[in-house]
Amino acid sequence: MTINEKELTEKASKIKMLLMDVDGVLTDGKMYFIPGPDGKMVEFKGFNSLDGIGLRLLNQFGIKTGIITGRISPATLQRAKNLGMTHLYQGFVSKLEPMKIIAKEEKIKADEIAYIGDDWTDIPALKAAGLACAPANARQEVKDNADYISPSKGGEGAVRDACELILYSKGLKEQIMKQVSEACWPPIIKKEIKVITGKE
Amino acid sequence: MTINEKELTEKASKIKMLLMDVDGVLTDGKMYFIPGPDGKMVEFKGFNSLDGIGLRLLNQFGIKTGIITGRISPATLQRAKNLGMTHLYQGFVSKLEPMKIIAKEEKIKADEIAYIGDDWTDIPALKAAGLACAPANARQEVKDNADYISPSKGGEGAVRDACELILYSKGLKEQIMKQVSEACWPPIIKKEIKVITGKE
Amino acid sequence: MTINEKELTEKASKIKMLLMDVDGVLTDGKMYFIPGPDGKMVEFKGFNSLDGIGLRLLNQFGIKTGIITGRISPATLQRAKNLGMTHLYQGFVSKLEPMKIIAKEEKIKADEIAYIGDDWTDIPALKAAGLACAPANARQEVKDNADYISPSKGGEGAVRDACELILYSKGLKEQIMKQVSEACWPPIIKKEIKVITGKE
Amino acid sequence: MTINEKELTEKASKIKMLLMDVDGVLTDGKMYFIPGPDGKMVEFKGFNSLDGIGLRLLNQFGIKTGIITGRISPATLQRAKNLGMTHLYQGFVSKLEPMKIIAKEEKIKADEIAYIGDDWTDIPALKAAGLACAPANARQEVKDNADYISPSKGGEGAVRDACELILYSKGLKEQIMKQVSEACWPPIIKKEIKVITGKE
Repeated sequence: MTINEKELTEKASKIKMLLMDVDGVLTDGKMYFIPGPDGKMVEFKGFNSLDGIGLRLLNQFGIKTGIITGRISPATLQRAKNLGMTHLYQGFVSKLEPMKIIAKEEKIKADEIAYIGDDWTDIPALKAAGLACAPANARQEVKDNADYISPSKGGEGAVRDACELILYSKGLKEQIMKQVSEACWPPIIKKEIKVITGKE
Repeated sequence: MTINEKELTEKASKIKMLLMDVDGVLTDGKMYFIPGPDGKMVEFKGFNSLDGIGLRLLNQFGIKTGIITGRISPATLQRAKNLGMTHLYQGFVSKLEPMKIIAKEEKIKADEIAYIGDDWTDIPALKAAGLACAPANARQEVKDNADYISPSKGGEGAVRDACELILYSKGLKEQIMKQVSEACWPPIIKKEIKVITGKE
Repeated sequence: MTINEKELTEKASKIKMLLMDVDGVLTDGKMYFIPGPDGKMVEFKGFNSLDGIGLRLLNQFGIKTGIITGRISPATLQRAKNLGMTHLYQGFVSKLEPMKIIAKEEKIKADEIAYIGDDWTDIPALKAAGLACAPANARQEVKDNADYISPSKGGEGAVRDACELILYSKGLKEQIMKQVSEACWPPIIKKEIKVITGKE
Repeated sequence: MTINEKELTEKASKIKMLLMDVDGVLTDGKMYFIPGPDGKMVEFKGFNSLDGIGLRLLNQFGIKTGIITGRISPATLQRAKNLGMTHLYQGFVSKLEPMKIIAKEEKIKADEIAYIGDDWTDIPALKAAGLACAPANARQEVKDNADYISPSKGGEGAVRDACELILYSKGLKEQIMKQVSEACWPPIIKKEIKVITGKE
């Protein structure tokens, strides 16, 4: 799917919530397993500070954020909490159902939700979302279903790019750059996060 | 060795089991050592979520999977278990003997086994396998013995590519894409995994 | 902002202190979370040995160094201590205020401070600094405010490049190369480090 | 320094021991710090399996190996032990003195030692060695002093390339490839490793 700049801006300007996959999107897809303090194996992964600034700004401007991931990792929960996200579905390979539940709970319409994902399991959510985003490393079938393909790979700023797209489409660029130049960064508003854990 | 598209599809279509090396294949070859909770050094490494989807689909369609690796790491065991693998040989530098034992136990013929490896220690197994695969980063001598060289590096989706090759050669593409579009991902069938540990 | 070689050398030659951001500058921007020995999540990240040699030389030649970062991680404290830094502000998203406090405490003028950063939160500090540096991966708005853009990315030697720029601008190249050829590396002078922790 | 193929082979054919730096050579230069089980910070880093096969072969053919590194990490000790190395100097920024001591202890002449390093601290050792090797990512001043520059970066097989150079120069290629095709990998001979720890 390819849309023109104007259509993309129009779609992005309506967004009230950004939902995202983790592996290959907020990370480079790499997952590490180490024994935790109790000897049980723990999964961890690497997030990128670039995405943090973007998600922080969404938080500041009242655009909600959440994660829907097939995997279960305390690292993901930590990252979601740090960034003031309100929903974390982990252990859900199919992303569409959680997206529908979140939309209902938040009373947000499908075309007010942006979704960013990189793999086949993300395609139905991308098709249902108002703004479908993909990192540069997404599988071809995912790119074919995306309104916006970031020039950055997952874990290297792809989510940041999506955040800027949404914020700028709402005419916030000038205000953000003013804030940047004034070194004024309000604290992240941390509402309670709803964590639902599936079966992986 | 170079074979044409038709021969490749024919070879791949016969595959009933995919055996694989770990370092440089399921990972980028990097190995990390940290002290575990008991103070003893533990080896860990980074797996990629892209490979997970491919191996999950092999599992779903009854194509068995297993690992033969020269190294010993609880991270590898964890990954193998997560993905419903049935065989893990760790601490085996020579991959051919374990491959023969697995083939015998599973009553699978050599030309029904696909093997993917990146280094010299994998060459005899590649020569014996029905479908010999290599990641983009494989040593030249390995590539010379491969039927299929993935455009992706190890740890960046090389195994996923091999999985798609096998699945598509069996005419499953349409069915998989239907499943993708319907967000229908049956759980991974986790049979008992046979773990044999050599001397590294 | 673009300046010519001569202006750059002149600016660099005045520097008495190098302040730096961490994520995306001393690292590739990736942050990992694992459970620590007490079960609480700990953030860690990867520093590069190339930067170490550069910062070691600044230390040897009496050029002070310090870190101002939005994040809190014991890994950063460890790295700062190892390299003989004298200031670590962690949990400070806005870098300008800490820079001003450090300058005052150290009795150093703004044009005697070099700053290297990669993201929007660094821009006011870059504007105020006597020498504004950015890694190759910096956001465009950051590059627009930099006197010097390293050919290296953060975590791959960007800080080393900035260190060499400063040292060479002071005419120290010959002396350093003599020391290199004589394998003479005086120990790092480790003064007390002032650690101020904000709210992240 | 550039030498022709014939001179390079001649130099490499004399080598009885390969000494190497760690950060940026056996690794990509990245160093991570995490709290160990006792709460104290531990440094770890990522080694590459490609180098392992090369060092294993040196071990098999009686070419000794050792590490001289400026840093102290249990991960390095673990790696050195695994590969049957006989010397580990850690906490030594200047590599020349340890190299001289090792040469004397092992009764090996300077032109029988190969050294591989990437940074300024390695230059005197490179100049003194019979075969001076550098990874693709080495600083320019290091490359200027190298007989051989690997096409691979540190942590991506640079040491493997140096091992192959040495082994092939001794006319061992055919024998190695025979061994490879016969899946015959004798176990690593693990002699006692002499560990000397400096001050970092």
